[in-house]
Amino acid sequence: MKIIEGGVTAPKGFEAAGVEAGIKYENRKDMAIIYSEAPCVAAGTFTTNVVKAAPVKWDMKLVAESPFVQAVVVNTGIANAGTGSEGMNCCRETAKAAGKLLGIPENAVLVGSTGVIGPQLPMDRIKAGVRKLAEAKSTELSSGTDAAKAIMTTDTVHKEIAVSLEAGGKTVTIGAMSKGSGMIHPNMGTMLSYVCTDAVIGKEELTKLVKEVVVDTYNMISVDGDTSTNDTLLVLANGMAGNPEILPGTPEYEEFRKALRYVNETQAKRLAGDGEGAKALVECRVINADTKENARKLAKSVICSSLTKAAIFGHDANWGRILCALGYSGASFDPEHMEISYQGARKSILIYKDGAGVDYSEEEATAILSEEEVRILADMKLGDEEATAWGCDLTYDYVKINADYRS
Amino acid sequence: MKIIEGGVTAPKGFEAAGVEAGIKYENRKDMAIIYSEAPCVAAGTFTTNVVKAAPVKWDMKLVAESPFVQAVVVNTGIANAGTGSEGMNCCRETAKAAGKLLGIPENAVLVGSTGVIGPQLPMDRIKAGVRKLAEAKSTELSSGTDAAKAIMTTDTVHKEIAVSLEAGGKTVTIGAMSKGSGMIHPNMGTMLSYVCTDAVIGKEELTKLVKEVVVDTYNMISVDGDTSTNDTLLVLANGMAGNPEILPGTPEYEEFRKALRYVNETQAKRLAGDGEGAKALVECRVINADTKENARKLAKSVICSSLTKAAIFGHDANWGRILCALGYSGASFDPEHMEISYQGARKSILIYKDGAGVDYSEEEATAILSEEEVRILADMKLGDEEATAWGCDLTYDYVKINADYRS
Repeated sequence: MKIIEGGVTAPKGFEAAGVEAGIKYENRKDMAIIYSEAPCVAAGTFTTNVVKAAPVKWDMKLVAESPFVQAVVVNTGIANAGTGSEGMNCCRETAKAAGKLLGIPENAVLVGSTGVIGPQLPMDRIKAGVRKLAEAKSTELSSGTDAAKAIMTTDTVHKEIAVSLEAGGKTVTIGAMSKGSGMIHPNMGTMLSYVCTDAVIGKEELTKLVKEVVVDTYNMISVDGDTSTNDTLLVLANGMAGNPEILPGTPEYEEFRKALRYVNETQAKRLAGDGEGAKALVECRVINADTKENARKLAKSVICSSLTKAAIFGHDANWGRILCALGYSGASFDPEHMEISYQGARKSILIYKDGAGVDYSEEEATAILSEEEVRILADMKLGDEEATAWGCDLTYDYVKINADYRS
Repeated sequence: MKIIEGGVTAPKGFEAAGVEAGIKYENRKDMAIIYSEAPCVAAGTFTTNVVKAAPVKWDMKLVAESPFVQAVVVNTGIANAGTGSEGMNCCRETAKAAGKLLGIPENAVLVGSTGVIGPQLPMDRIKAGVRKLAEAKSTELSSGTDAAKAIMTTDTVHKEIAVSLEAGGKTVTIGAMSKGSGMIHPNMGTMLSYVCTDAVIGKEELTKLVKEVVVDTYNMISVDGDTSTNDTLLVLANGMAGNPEILPGTPEYEEFRKALRYVNETQAKRLAGDGEGAKALVECRVINADTKENARKLAKSVICSSLTKAAIFGHDANWGRILCALGYSGASFDPEHMEISYQGARKSILIYKDGAGVDYSEEEATAILSEEEVRILADMKLGDEEATAWGCDLTYDYVKINADYRS
């Protein structure tokens, strides 16, 4: 596997665009399209929130029932959540308009929305946006970038990635774009993440792989503990690489799995590190846990702890808060027989061992906590399972952004 | 039941004191004692955190095994958590020193600590503090207030309460003091809350009542989702009111239960409203839920949502965040058939109904959201169970306090 330039338009046959549709703000790209020249098999995971946005319901139905999909239309500014049956109509109207322009059935058009919950979509602007998108879309790498920029809300940077791998003498490419920032605590899904590949792979295999990958990537990040109404991960495969079909038990399957995992883990970490107001990416790796499930619980509990997040913002090596968060994770362990350390880029320091704090240099600890990636390692000394979770620090800016989001 | 002046020294036979022991800071009261002239039956609930502070372990053992208890010694500044076997020795030494001065066995002395996790207690200062406490303790109401002030950490106000009721021709009194502020997300316990009563009541009945009351009071508040290592609620009954023993199935039992609930609910609300950096108490009442358990989950999910808390700080009537938090609570409901409203002191406004937002005056909503108590009502329209949870808004000051707690 190698990392290459570009995002969703890196794999063969995928086009994209990002345009200004004036949904909520002027002078910014706020609608995006992904279009595949060939029909795609699709897999997806979606929010577990009981309150599902209309586009989530639309996409769930399409992924489950449509014979194929071929396009995704996304808007920012308005989430189309809490919008009742009118909201569902907006999805259908959007898909219909796009389908007509692209010459594909409306049930081949996935939709996505992100933004404020409550208002209805301005359908005239959406439809005008769809027309612009259909005209602007291209296979250029820069068009993928335009799309990645158009789906941003309070993100500070756009998030795209592409990798390629060899499969049966053919080059298979995977490209992705994602947006996150607030209301990030995915559970079987993330905010919005779109992954395109030209691999030849069956729907069943793709679905299985996506489910597997999500557990250790998007489901292991949190910005604020709030699971959104709109969380969506979609993976589209159009088969245009012409590789022999990727089947379980083959080296190609393993290679593809690794690449898919790498793409999604990278995007998940970027979502966490670019959390609203965040100054640092916080990683917690739990090793030697008794079960995989407990390793995940422990790691996630630490990166979700407001007190730990605020301490990291203050560059304060307050291991008590990490220990406390491990303690209320729901996983059992022996606090008298485990270790916690901070892993800096150049140096690691042990801060807690076997029931009590260790003498360490506060100066060194502060230096490590001032890095852009703060890594916490917890050695549970119980077994050999491990998991990693990613979050961010809690800053004044998180409060500022969210106290005044709608105005 | 009537509300009367005072706190832990309001019931007969209880003495208290708060003194400066210089545990971590100078010029502030930082140690407290509660002492009963007569031996007490005790009931308690404690943190569910796997990492339990040494005083929690000490108190759990005493409440379970000691024939009676007669004193509680509490310090602030240092939590005596993450302190290993040396921390347990500190509890024993403290109890031993107090027992000797008070003429009671060491296993009749409960201890409590709150503050930073990690450092060992300075035992010379603790012992000097215990001597001062033993000298200073009195039945004066002001001594109860001194004790309530001495247990504060980042609390902005001390929290005491007393009520009295009639039972079999005798006046029974209940008095309490509590501290909270950060790391507040109790689960079978709270930060530190001490309740004294002169009622004649058996240990078994008291234990049952305490367990019952905790579920709807301390377990329904959250400041930051962090369940502390030190959460402790202790209820001591010394029997000095001379009432006929309070037994289940009698009107006195019901009256005592109500009074105990009132005392603990009031203290729990005060802990929530005085959360670190808080500008407002946030109450979420869920009505017409299908089960009591779901009502609790739904109410608690709303007051725990960082996004809802930040919106309330910004006086922003962002009902989408409330709906979203209800949606990820783990309880099932139909978002197309329920209502959300804000309940102001003088006026209520409906903001969401049957799947979509309602037209309401933003001006009125902002006025309600600017009150010191912000009340959210969610009508699930599923059954007839209800629950209420309390939290606070998320402010710049929460981040400030916790980014720099140790320095």
